[in-house]
Amino acid sequence: MTEVADRRTDTTSSRPATAGTQPAVDVAALGEQLLGKWADVRRQARELAARPELHKAEGLTHTEHRQRTFGQLRYLVDNNAVHRAFPAALGGSDDHGANIAGFEELVTADPSLQIKAGVQWGLFGSAVLHLGTEEHHRRWLPGIMNLDIPGCFAMTETGHGSDVASIATTATYDAGTQEFVIHTPFRAAWKDYIGNAALDGLGAVVFAQLITRGMNHGVHAFYVDLRDPDTKEFLAGIGGEDDGLKGGLNGIDNGRLHFSNVRIPRTNLLNRYGDVDAEGNYSSSIASPGRRFFTMLGTLVQGRVSLDGAAVAASKIALKTAITYATERRQFTSSSLTEEEVLLDYQRHQRRLFTRLATTYAAAFAHEQLLQKFDDVFSGAHDTDADRQDLETLAAALKPLSTWHALDTLQECREACGGAGFLIENRFASLRADLDVYVTFEGDNTVLLQLVAKRLLADYANEFRNVNFGVLARYVVNQAAGTAVHRTGLRGVAQFVADTGLPQKAAIALRDEESQRALLTDRVQSMVAEAGTALRGASKLPQKEAAAVFNRHQNELIDAAQAHAELLQWEAFTDALGQCTDPGTKTVLTWLRDLFGLSLIEKNLSWYLMNGRLSMQRARTVGGYINRLLVKIRPHALDLVDSFGYTQDHLRAAIATGAEKVRQDEARDFYRAQRASGSAPVDEKSVLARKARDARRS
Amino acid sequence: MTEVADRRTDTTSSRPATAGTQPAVDVAALGEQLLGKWADVRRQARELAARPELHKAEGLTHTEHRQRTFGQLRYLVDNNAVHRAFPAALGGSDDHGANIAGFEELVTADPSLQIKAGVQWGLFGSAVLHLGTEEHHRRWLPGIMNLDIPGCFAMTETGHGSDVASIATTATYDAGTQEFVIHTPFRAAWKDYIGNAALDGLGAVVFAQLITRGMNHGVHAFYVDLRDPDTKEFLAGIGGEDDGLKGGLNGIDNGRLHFSNVRIPRTNLLNRYGDVDAEGNYSSSIASPGRRFFTMLGTLVQGRVSLDGAAVAASKIALKTAITYATERRQFTSSSLTEEEVLLDYQRHQRRLFTRLATTYAAAFAHEQLLQKFDDVFSGAHDTDADRQDLETLAAALKPLSTWHALDTLQECREACGGAGFLIENRFASLRADLDVYVTFEGDNTVLLQLVAKRLLADYANEFRNVNFGVLARYVVNQAAGTAVHRTGLRGVAQFVADTGLPQKAAIALRDEESQRALLTDRVQSMVAEAGTALRGASKLPQKEAAAVFNRHQNELIDAAQAHAELLQWEAFTDALGQCTDPGTKTVLTWLRDLFGLSLIEKNLSWYLMNGRLSMQRARTVGGYINRLLVKIRPHALDLVDSFGYTQDHLRAAIATGAEKVRQDEARDFYRAQRASGSAPVDEKSVLARKARDARRS
Repeated sequence: MTEVADRRTDTTSSRPATAGTQPAVDVAALGEQLLGKWADVRRQARELAARPELHKAEGLTHTEHRQRTFGQLRYLVDNNAVHRAFPAALGGSDDHGANIAGFEELVTADPSLQIKAGVQWGLFGSAVLHLGTEEHHRRWLPGIMNLDIPGCFAMTETGHGSDVASIATTATYDAGTQEFVIHTPFRAAWKDYIGNAALDGLGAVVFAQLITRGMNHGVHAFYVDLRDPDTKEFLAGIGGEDDGLKGGLNGIDNGRLHFSNVRIPRTNLLNRYGDVDAEGNYSSSIASPGRRFFTMLGTLVQGRVSLDGAAVAASKIALKTAITYATERRQFTSSSLTEEEVLLDYQRHQRRLFTRLATTYAAAFAHEQLLQKFDDVFSGAHDTDADRQDLETLAAALKPLSTWHALDTLQECREACGGAGFLIENRFASLRADLDVYVTFEGDNTVLLQLVAKRLLADYANEFRNVNFGVLARYVVNQAAGTAVHRTGLRGVAQFVADTGLPQKAAIALRDEESQRALLTDRVQSMVAEAGTALRGASKLPQKEAAAVFNRHQNELIDAAQAHAELLQWEAFTDALGQCTDPGTKTVLTWLRDLFGLSLIEKNLSWYLMNGRLSMQRARTVGGYINRLLVKIRPHALDLVDSFGYTQDHLRAAIATGAEKVRQDEARDFYRAQRASGSAPVDEKSVLARKARDARRS
Repeated sequence: MTEVADRRTDTTSSRPATAGTQPAVDVAALGEQLLGKWADVRRQARELAARPELHKAEGLTHTEHRQRTFGQLRYLVDNNAVHRAFPAALGGSDDHGANIAGFEELVTADPSLQIKAGVQWGLFGSAVLHLGTEEHHRRWLPGIMNLDIPGCFAMTETGHGSDVASIATTATYDAGTQEFVIHTPFRAAWKDYIGNAALDGLGAVVFAQLITRGMNHGVHAFYVDLRDPDTKEFLAGIGGEDDGLKGGLNGIDNGRLHFSNVRIPRTNLLNRYGDVDAEGNYSSSIASPGRRFFTMLGTLVQGRVSLDGAAVAASKIALKTAITYATERRQFTSSSLTEEEVLLDYQRHQRRLFTRLATTYAAAFAHEQLLQKFDDVFSGAHDTDADRQDLETLAAALKPLSTWHALDTLQECREACGGAGFLIENRFASLRADLDVYVTFEGDNTVLLQLVAKRLLADYANEFRNVNFGVLARYVVNQAAGTAVHRTGLRGVAQFVADTGLPQKAAIALRDEESQRALLTDRVQSMVAEAGTALRGASKLPQKEAAAVFNRHQNELIDAAQAHAELLQWEAFTDALGQCTDPGTKTVLTWLRDLFGLSLIEKNLSWYLMNGRLSMQRARTVGGYINRLLVKIRPHALDLVDSFGYTQDHLRAAIATGAEKVRQDEARDFYRAQRASGSAPVDEKSVLARKARDARRS
């Protein structure tokens, strides 16, 4: 509070003085709330990320950048920063939530570092940990943890990315030698986009179709040595290619791998969920091949969780810089005034930045819930099948929104800073380039949203198992009220939004929490119900026709999944308000939550109108209400980005340092002094204007 | 037509066979129409842009890239590619439209090359040409044209970008020595982001406040020598800084410049629109300082025109690659089928790519109109004040839309190609990085749209000069019908869209050209009228309050300007349909135009509903109608991108070569042969499914 008070009395500050009755944000307390359950781990990780050794060096060739990033991985090992998720017996701490919390903070140092660390410990190491058994852990985890074995997570193929079940690499068991034969049957089956594959990877977890005794048991993971540790040459039968330059993340040596009848011992099968005995008999604790596949892949959800967190962190960095600059930078004048307006006092600028600020808060609170859910499952505290499925659905819902939001925010912030925003010294363009691929890797966002839609449809089908669909078909949109469609997200809606009354009353209703919830929830339920009705019976059609029916509704389904994910963010934001104890902070955060909710409603206003959920009259109040929220939030904008808790060592943007204010003050002082001395030139324009006035008078 | 016919009979082609009654696109004829008035110049420029010497070399350090780009400028000179706009007397051809047409095609080679050429000849050279007089042309143009004098266009300052009128650099006349003293009074007045400033610039056109005899006559342009041609060192009193790495365009040496009482001869004032005699008396052919300023700046509109064209070209390149890939790449299977679906058969994928294809066509046709308008003005054929203002408004309207569209399209295409899209070898990420700054330079897009809004308001005020505003205020949205608000764009709307009837009838109405026009036009008129009413009288308020009133409507004004620009694109597309003679091509293009129009209506559907322009019933048909258009366009997608006329030498994307089809065919053939030989492993999943079926039966 002290800091806030000081600022209020500092009249030269770029922060507008707030009136005595104005609420104030408790920056420190809000900062603590944002740090969440693993606050201490985050603080440690931020301290580390603040060190110059870990910072992205701009302008390197990709060869130099790769070398630097690899060196940084060693630095992380030396600083004990990356072993939290590994078994205590091997020097880790079995702490999955803390591990992700620490890991995602690395994005502020260099996204290449974050992702290369993710490849090594989050994917390669994690696969050995979660898909392997004790002997595998003993043999490989120590070397993976201390980076003696840099390795690859060789799942994706040139021909198959999101559709992992269809990868074409085979692992055929040869009982004669008790070996698996890893083989790439054609070019499309080359492993592709694999981190550590081009240069550093000595080992790999290779995903392949397990074939034994003439039967294909589906995708399994195999440990394969790739390169000679001394010469770094590929071992016999293994080849590859460098993926070369990428749009970003050039500190990582992505590449391609192919295998020509490469033989590995039977025991290199990571056999936690499926095994082959010496004779070639397959066994698994999970009878259903489909469930087995999803269980194996499910252990890898942490990649999505951490991308969600890293995307939020990058959005925070961008907004802190852009909003700071917008409070200092002046542009265009209200004519008679001698001073130009600061950018942040323009309505459009507020809209551009504050709506994204609100979404960033929503995404941050949602991420904290996701991370806690992840920790519940992986710590074993709550790890039923239902918990795991909920976790996966939640990750699949939130990761697309937060990663797209990060790109959108980085771009809008870069544009809001004009030419300065385009300079690498201000970091927007660099972060944006690096985060670009977050929207398609670890699950393509569009594909993930389809998984969410599938889950929503399944839940819908369960809820309505005994309902006469014929009756529902026509008026289903009015019927969903009162029913929880999705356990992890949707709440029961007690009542339909009463939509009558004067515009003033309408605005009050829209900022009412329950009204926002009802509107947002109703939309998800109705969209799912509508799609569910349209698709009912499709599963009984021949597969080709069923696919065609689904395809005709693909766009709606993806939209429904997105609406669901947005509702989850809104609920997380609303939950966070309940945990906020300082009244001033709570008031301001509530405005921000309202801005988030109303922006969602505005974005989908046509849906609310078309479906009779909002009257024309009320719909017309939404824009104006948003504009009034912008004005309310304006005095608190700096506090809201300060609460993110990042220092200049994390921001590293020339325009986040106050340099613009120094320049503006210098310019203002120059003109003041010039006017005071009487040496200022007369303005031709004003002379002509005076003459014109005089002429009119006489 | 031969090519189309051949493809139809090629059943192994990735292009679906079209039924006999289907229309077909005449690719060659459509290509010719797209090339437009300066087709031959474009062909020459594309032939040049196809040469490896001019291609962007990826992975260079920015130092290397700068050297390469500078060398490419010499190559352009040697190949006579950049002098079309200069006077015939000096070896040019006084052909302004052709100059821009050729220039914008360079973007496919390397955007750095396009923009560095733009700095040298389009800005620096153009300023000397258009703001200088004969003696200036004689002295400097030959060296500028042949690159003996690489130079800068030193307008923007660190403290002032879009607000050029407020730049702080001064040029004070000293009658004693008959010199101007160029001076930078403080840090914010350093010239910034100036191409050629960091390294190559020997000369510069410097924009500064002209002060003589104690009066400031506003911004004027001065020719200033910057560096010693031999040592490349700054001359006395001049300093600077390198802007360093940027988000893209790193082939250009942007930098900062500052001047400490640098003296230049009086005659270095580029004096076409304002002059100072030896005694220091100022004179100008344009009495109003405001009009003088805008006239001087107006000569520089060609930058915006060429960015508009280059943005369209980049969008074409991206779509050609992404759509080609989407017809070859297969992903996920309709289960019982042995072959997976090609991406372009997915509804969402069609929506992502075809809506952007439609917008690209609209932007392309609109650009051709802009370029012809530009040529009309600059050739002198039609260059009244009104023509010039229309040209500027048109450029200010179209450049924001096309440059934002290019970034959006490049990004969507990159995402639509997944991990492959992120590899530099497929160019999306590289082009996107380079084009990023197009949205804020040569006029920040948001600022430009405000200029358009201002013009729309002024026209509105003129039209309604004698109308009682009080009467209008409440129901103004219904009143605008029948009135042309903007000469260059808005057409009279003869009738309000009759909005009754069944959904089927509604869909017919929506695809009707006049209905689309009425809806789009009505929205612009109503938004302008509404804002105009709200702002009426604001100009009579004290300036601070007037500014506050404007600010409260800033967001709406920008939205109105955008709606206006979109309407211009739609009108241009519709005009182009009228010029299309082949019936098949016309049918397909009409679907594409409808997709564009309906997408605009869908995007703003809430407006149409809130304002009673569309009924709930009809609004609900829009999405379905768009989906049906996607299906209709699908068989013609490749033709529509082939018509852009770019070759592999322009695309230079690994996935645009047909390589994916080769890989997919190889994979398919492998599995076919495996099945035929009986050596395919049995699938555990299908065995279990069969067992389950058998168990149920018995």
